[in-house]
Amino acid sequence: MRQKIGILGATGMVGQRFIQLLENHPWFEVAWLAASDRSSGKKYGEAVKWKLDTALPERIANMTVSPAVPDHAPRIIFAALDTDIAREMEPAFAAAGCAVISNSSAFRMHEDVPLVIPEVNADHLPILENQTWRKESGGYIVTNPNCSAIGLVLVLKPLVERFGIDAIFVSTMQAISGAGYPGVASMDILGNVVPYIKNEEEKMQAETLRLLGSRDGKLVKPLAAGMTAHCNRVPVEDGHTESVSVKLSRKATKEEILAAWREFQPLAGRDLPTAPAQPIEFVGLEDRPQPRLDKMRGNGMAATVGRLRECTLLDWKFTVLSHNTIRGAAGAALLNAELLVSLGKLDPVKNSDQAAVTA
Amino acid sequence: MRQKIGILGATGMVGQRFIQLLENHPWFEVAWLAASDRSSGKKYGEAVKWKLDTALPERIANMTVSPAVPDHAPRIIFAALDTDIAREMEPAFAAAGCAVISNSSAFRMHEDVPLVIPEVNADHLPILENQTWRKESGGYIVTNPNCSAIGLVLVLKPLVERFGIDAIFVSTMQAISGAGYPGVASMDILGNVVPYIKNEEEKMQAETLRLLGSRDGKLVKPLAAGMTAHCNRVPVEDGHTESVSVKLSRKATKEEILAAWREFQPLAGRDLPTAPAQPIEFVGLEDRPQPRLDKMRGNGMAATVGRLRECTLLDWKFTVLSHNTIRGAAGAALLNAELLVSLGKLDPVKNSDQAAVTA
Amino acid sequence: MRQKIGILGATGMVGQRFIQLLENHPWFEVAWLAASDRSSGKKYGEAVKWKLDTALPERIANMTVSPAVPDHAPRIIFAALDTDIAREMEPAFAAAGCAVISNSSAFRMHEDVPLVIPEVNADHLPILENQTWRKESGGYIVTNPNCSAIGLVLVLKPLVERFGIDAIFVSTMQAISGAGYPGVASMDILGNVVPYIKNEEEKMQAETLRLLGSRDGKLVKPLAAGMTAHCNRVPVEDGHTESVSVKLSRKATKEEILAAWREFQPLAGRDLPTAPAQPIEFVGLEDRPQPRLDKMRGNGMAATVGRLRECTLLDWKFTVLSHNTIRGAAGAALLNAELLVSLGKLDPVKNSDQAAVTA
Amino acid sequence: MRQKIGILGATGMVGQRFIQLLENHPWFEVAWLAASDRSSGKKYGEAVKWKLDTALPERIANMTVSPAVPDHAPRIIFAALDTDIAREMEPAFAAAGCAVISNSSAFRMHEDVPLVIPEVNADHLPILENQTWRKESGGYIVTNPNCSAIGLVLVLKPLVERFGIDAIFVSTMQAISGAGYPGVASMDILGNVVPYIKNEEEKMQAETLRLLGSRDGKLVKPLAAGMTAHCNRVPVEDGHTESVSVKLSRKATKEEILAAWREFQPLAGRDLPTAPAQPIEFVGLEDRPQPRLDKMRGNGMAATVGRLRECTLLDWKFTVLSHNTIRGAAGAALLNAELLVSLGKLDPVKNSDQAAVTA
Repeated sequence: MRQKIGILGATGMVGQRFIQLLENHPWFEVAWLAASDRSSGKKYGEAVKWKLDTALPERIANMTVSPAVPDHAPRIIFAALDTDIAREMEPAFAAAGCAVISNSSAFRMHEDVPLVIPEVNADHLPILENQTWRKESGGYIVTNPNCSAIGLVLVLKPLVERFGIDAIFVSTMQAISGAGYPGVASMDILGNVVPYIKNEEEKMQAETLRLLGSRDGKLVKPLAAGMTAHCNRVPVEDGHTESVSVKLSRKATKEEILAAWREFQPLAGRDLPTAPAQPIEFVGLEDRPQPRLDKMRGNGMAATVGRLRECTLLDWKFTVLSHNTIRGAAGAALLNAELLVSLGKLDPVKNSDQAAVTA
Repeated sequence: MRQKIGILGATGMVGQRFIQLLENHPWFEVAWLAASDRSSGKKYGEAVKWKLDTALPERIANMTVSPAVPDHAPRIIFAALDTDIAREMEPAFAAAGCAVISNSSAFRMHEDVPLVIPEVNADHLPILENQTWRKESGGYIVTNPNCSAIGLVLVLKPLVERFGIDAIFVSTMQAISGAGYPGVASMDILGNVVPYIKNEEEKMQAETLRLLGSRDGKLVKPLAAGMTAHCNRVPVEDGHTESVSVKLSRKATKEEILAAWREFQPLAGRDLPTAPAQPIEFVGLEDRPQPRLDKMRGNGMAATVGRLRECTLLDWKFTVLSHNTIRGAAGAALLNAELLVSLGKLDPVKNSDQAAVTA
Repeated sequence: MRQKIGILGATGMVGQRFIQLLENHPWFEVAWLAASDRSSGKKYGEAVKWKLDTALPERIANMTVSPAVPDHAPRIIFAALDTDIAREMEPAFAAAGCAVISNSSAFRMHEDVPLVIPEVNADHLPILENQTWRKESGGYIVTNPNCSAIGLVLVLKPLVERFGIDAIFVSTMQAISGAGYPGVASMDILGNVVPYIKNEEEKMQAETLRLLGSRDGKLVKPLAAGMTAHCNRVPVEDGHTESVSVKLSRKATKEEILAAWREFQPLAGRDLPTAPAQPIEFVGLEDRPQPRLDKMRGNGMAATVGRLRECTLLDWKFTVLSHNTIRGAAGAALLNAELLVSLGKLDPVKNSDQAAVTA
Repeated sequence: MRQKIGILGATGMVGQRFIQLLENHPWFEVAWLAASDRSSGKKYGEAVKWKLDTALPERIANMTVSPAVPDHAPRIIFAALDTDIAREMEPAFAAAGCAVISNSSAFRMHEDVPLVIPEVNADHLPILENQTWRKESGGYIVTNPNCSAIGLVLVLKPLVERFGIDAIFVSTMQAISGAGYPGVASMDILGNVVPYIKNEEEKMQAETLRLLGSRDGKLVKPLAAGMTAHCNRVPVEDGHTESVSVKLSRKATKEEILAAWREFQPLAGRDLPTAPAQPIEFVGLEDRPQPRLDKMRGNGMAATVGRLRECTLLDWKFTVLSHNTIRGAAGAALLNAELLVSLGKLDPVKNSDQAAVTA
């Protein structure tokens, strides 16, 4: 018996990834698809420009796209909406009692909305109990971070735990799929670099510190570390690569750092279907990680790190890679939903009493 | 009356750029081409795999490739050799009385060998008088920096002069042409990022600090600043893009920094043919500089800088771009030669008394 | 004294090429720029997203974009409009007495509108005298072909003249710039091939046969040859590459074909500024022509042909390359205008008596 | 009980694909790996530059690379060798009693060596009985075609069967992985097209006609059709795209052609593990097939065809796509081996009496 779920923004790039990742999912079943008015009422197979290299499942292709209103939506909603639309639509679904598992940036920094990576800060989840929607209808919003932050945060988390981090420098080389479809014009990126992604540096900095922060009662206190991000777009299809330098609070050897990454197993025992066996994979080859070769580690859910070496300015430097539309978007939301299920907090009842979430 | 010059390593990518840039040069005339034994004795047009998008000049195509020995070489030699070969060959030419204007890394950090960018540290040139070759035959070696360092150093120089620099963080996205031909395999870089270039970070760090350092009698003292470099290869044909953060010794406003760049005119009045009118071009558009659009500014000899904004970790951050095989290689050497001419120190006599160089 | 010209659709990719090519043009001066209502009234430098790698000329950047109406437009108008807009707007300018030198497909196959490549079918020009606009206001429309047809037709013309052609097979690999900006989404073309360009095969087939056809009084009779085109998009910035097989009416040797191409000099003596010295350049290297290396031959106005070899199905096969936004668009229109000037038919008078054009 | 197999040329691109495809194969187990002298004696994991985006299996990484001699090799050898090496090495293994399932071109056109695609011409297999090696040691060589021919031939086969084919025109856009590693230099192909692949057109033409030919006793008679191929390299990682026009012997409607493709099921009932359920997949979208989206159909073993439309020169035209290193190389050889097993002719005995192969 799989739980029925719905997808908001089902025809976009992240919406397509949701469909791909949910095909054959052991816990969830796609039961409802919504998109813009233009698509509403059409067969999904006709409404979508399918851009993935696996086939659009027949059953999904034949589903009719619903209007983006909560009336007949299931309790669990994966939301892959543009920020402006999310800002209006996600509250409507939460108010109607839906658990909105959102990939949008609209509410990530909202004080009552958990911004969560299950391996990193599952203990932030209880702040969702403060949401008015939660209190009134049982609905709520939970978010996952920006695609540029998630791989970085996974790799930094064990360092924060074991050594503390005082300063973070990161420069990204981000894939085009992060901009959706049609997204980046080929005239802008073929054989080129665009050293700018609107609002990305601000999001990456704020979200990273919040994710690595600690919950203090009803509030999340961001990590007290200096951080700066340079965000760049490069002609890569999938996979964000990041050059990182960090200053640790307490000195650590190379071996200690490698051990911290290797032993990072915060979800051990939970058996979440989408969780990678090894959330952080270290690759010892001198020219890795690379998006083409490493983005699919852990079925696209692992963060790969390599080139660990001393930094002549801070303490250590290394390169981080993660898949931006799997670990950085649809897979992140899916793993959040699995965590909520495993905490017993995603029961299929809507508009009803809901037990408090405690992680 | 143009001076005759020779090119060592004439068939490689940088050798080809020398030929392209020297076509119609007002001061120099290509009179001698040398390459590996395999090419020696052939017509240049048959020996070379010409990879530039301007035509190989007819006159050059018909020249015969000479053996790479100084016997009949002209006094002025542009050297575009691999490091290992340069280490043996450049001293042989210097010992024979040639002025070796080298693009190789072999002698850049040698204490008697000037590592020079004319706009930045022409005052380092006199250390060449300490070279044994200089004393014995009049020959010498002068070098230009690595393609990743040169744009950065141009942009940093006026900041060092006006405000001082304490710390430099840089992460590069470097073009494939920097690796020569065949160089980077397409299987490695198409739609991919390679976060590693052998020895590049070490060179970039050491050369940057040396170039920004000051001459103290016979020695160059590197700039006393912290610096770290992350070097990455991206699928771009020409043009290195660099994300840079700096900590200044004395605080500066955005306007002061822009003025420092705008007013940087150290070669004004010298009339060097290859010197760009504006060595540092600031571009105010939010998504620039980009290699495709900006690499040819100043005929490929300007460094372009953009995205000046506050850094949340150091003081300021910005993006630097320069053409890696023009400003970063052949054009750099050519400008060094022009500077030496303008100082009256590249007279056509070989194996003869040479006046001391003073900049 | 340069003639003043105007550009319709000045902010698009072809409009930008017009500005680039007209900078320093000896006969024409950009005096009027028009674009969509959104741009009208703005400074051109603010209205345009300049995508070329040469600087936007200062003078042009400061010009104010005019509304796209003929009221204050100069006599000579270069039109770079989308087909649907061209269909309405070009007749309005022709009716107002303008000579509309159009790059659009809207009227190319219209029986009274010359579709012209100066080297190929200047003798088709007189049909413009049949245009009602011409008769009433002196204005007219002259068009240049689709970017995929122009290189092919240049290369085929001397074969038609000397040997006749019975059948043409062509398969194209077309650059992204042909689709304008934003044009092709990077998600569609990075590391990919799209074997479809809307309406392109139909246009290429019809235009090729019309261009190679002969004028019979007031009408153009298309070449009586079989032809089929396959049109594909590839991840190349500029330059269309085409695999071509032809069946000749009379057998020819390789040497005869090479001679036909070499000796093709139909504009000799006319001194048109934009005409390439050698309209067809044959390159003998086995792996050429290539867009990266050959697109700029003849300043982007030559068609390059290579790999001439026997075809096991028809008679001969070869590869053709031409620059799609220079020879294939803005340069084509500009050369048409120069031809009209050289025929004495582009005098600056509008709404006045016009002498008949005879080529 | 899986049969042990060996791989000759195990470290190359095709060798790597063999390892990837054989991981978890139900019938075969990788038991022996050989490569050049340079690799011999090393752990495979150290000898190989693994370039696939799935992990190198641990067990394989720890295998020791054997010298490329038949002494301790298993009976079944997958050979992924360069032509020159294959020409010497494959006969040595066949003479020693091995069944050499070869991907090389060295013996494809040899009159006693079957060139086979299981769905197309399994009935050519018996000619291997004529091989001297077969008679003397039981060993033999069986080959699969060039990566450019295989997708085309799959798509043409049902047309030959139902309607006959008189003429074939094909122009290819081939992926870089077809050239191995390092293969194509990035300087040659990034943002470029190379209209030449050494010997490719000759191979493609000859192999296509041989594969579509019929066995007449001991000999294969090629299809009596005209054919011409243009072969081009494009910046695509995997997947060859081909523009095809054909003239049929007997006219066919669009529906008849689609039915011929749809109903093509020559391996039905054989249960070969690597055979795709649908060897030819027709895709009805106007801009497909595309390498990025369609190359993995049938796990990389299907040929995808689309854009079926009338040809204005021959009868019909369409676009074909297939994965060049799966269906076009390692997967092709693997399917050949599976066919031989299913025919009862790949028993594990070497240097022993072998029953004759009859398909």
